[in-house]
Amino acid sequence: MSKDRPLILVCNDDGITAPGLRCLISIMNELGEVVVVAPDGPQSGKGHSITLEGILRCDEIKIDDGPQKEYSVSGTPVDCVKLAVNVVLDRKPDLVVSGINHGSNSSINVIYSGTMSAAVEGSLEGIPSVGFSLLDYSWDADFNSARSHIKNIAESILIKGLPHGTCLNVNIPMHNGQPYRGVRVWRQAKANWEEEFDSRQDPRHRNYYWLTGKFVNYDTGEDTDEWALENYFISVVPVNSDITAYGLMDELRHWKI
Amino acid sequence: MSKDRPLILVCNDDGITAPGLRCLISIMNELGEVVVVAPDGPQSGKGHSITLEGILRCDEIKIDDGPQKEYSVSGTPVDCVKLAVNVVLDRKPDLVVSGINHGSNSSINVIYSGTMSAAVEGSLEGIPSVGFSLLDYSWDADFNSARSHIKNIAESILIKGLPHGTCLNVNIPMHNGQPYRGVRVWRQAKANWEEEFDSRQDPRHRNYYWLTGKFVNYDTGEDTDEWALENYFISVVPVNSDITAYGLMDELRHWKI
Repeated sequence: MSKDRPLILVCNDDGITAPGLRCLISIMNELGEVVVVAPDGPQSGKGHSITLEGILRCDEIKIDDGPQKEYSVSGTPVDCVKLAVNVVLDRKPDLVVSGINHGSNSSINVIYSGTMSAAVEGSLEGIPSVGFSLLDYSWDADFNSARSHIKNIAESILIKGLPHGTCLNVNIPMHNGQPYRGVRVWRQAKANWEEEFDSRQDPRHRNYYWLTGKFVNYDTGEDTDEWALENYFISVVPVNSDITAYGLMDELRHWKI
Repeated sequence: MSKDRPLILVCNDDGITAPGLRCLISIMNELGEVVVVAPDGPQSGKGHSITLEGILRCDEIKIDDGPQKEYSVSGTPVDCVKLAVNVVLDRKPDLVVSGINHGSNSSINVIYSGTMSAAVEGSLEGIPSVGFSLLDYSWDADFNSARSHIKNIAESILIKGLPHGTCLNVNIPMHNGQPYRGVRVWRQAKANWEEEFDSRQDPRHRNYYWLTGKFVNYDTGEDTDEWALENYFISVVPVNSDITAYGLMDELRHWKI
């Protein structure tokens, strides 16, 4: 494959066999030379976790008949990006794409998301990076209806670039049979998860818990990712890795600490 | 214990037996009613990871003779905060303190840090929250020299509060025998990890990797946490959970996407 084609690293958090990843690979194969480095199993909700206490495996694998090279990793999405850049690839990729996630990574989900953390990690390596998520958790979700939008956004990033440490969080409404209304570049809505732990007893009468919860959007703004998605727009939020709360600095300097 | 004393939730990522946590508990016992909900083992580098694929254990435990209640959790630091708020505690805590971490969480480390993610999670629950870290990875580090500063910062947060979704990242230089030069409220330095994977073969001749790396600060600003720490100041960075890159919005809106 020609060295003139862009080198695209593809990752996700649902695991290397996930249909959302397979769809993203097939779109990226139209844009460049694709290398997939993705987790060997589900890594949802792993945030920016890295593997410090254990070892990592990274093995070449063949899953479909596409032209891409693929590597299966025993760690987190962020481990995958680090391994890709430092071990697997012989040059720096031109683009990191992560997803397509099965389920939303809008609003506060961005900080829990392994998919988005892979994109953030790409941006920290100085590579233009983007995460794509579809608001449909099912394994057989309709990823294909967003193909042209995903291709267009990825192509734009390849042409324009992104600042070091900044990536894009793209969320796509579940397709309803109608064309999407367009793309909105807006801010992360203020929302949260209200947990409801499911408490159970194991066969030896010891308690354990399953984490469950309800997503609550308490942001009434019409300039948020949640508003865009509810109104059938594809949402694009630029994401920072400098998480300093600059607005609070002056007040803190008046504290006697 | 009187209900008039503030309720303080203590967490960390080095595990419930870590000396840094024990020191933080003893400081917080001077300020209020303390409940510890902390991981049962090391959870460094777990970022904002939550446990979705497996179960969680949360068991009461007694480790020292202090007045605090303690619970050991099989999950991540963020799991600990969620379990504390939703299962363990009968009222919302007045303060979440996380640490004292064995090692730095300054600069970009903040997004990999389980200690800081516990504080971020507290802030998302609407609780004033802070993470403390000492720039000394050793198990027998000198945590006590920073006692008065830690107590003072925690007391100030109890009095002043913090905005919903914002917490503080406090890093403390390794003590050199001299009093600390003071406290600086500054921004997260632009820095990164350059990975150097340690590649090995297991006894069955299969490759595996250990993640290692070198911290590189490429920020020459004199208003950063790294500058403060290098100059023997305690560093305080306010941290946001809204990670929208507002500065990039206008440019993105001119893209044809």
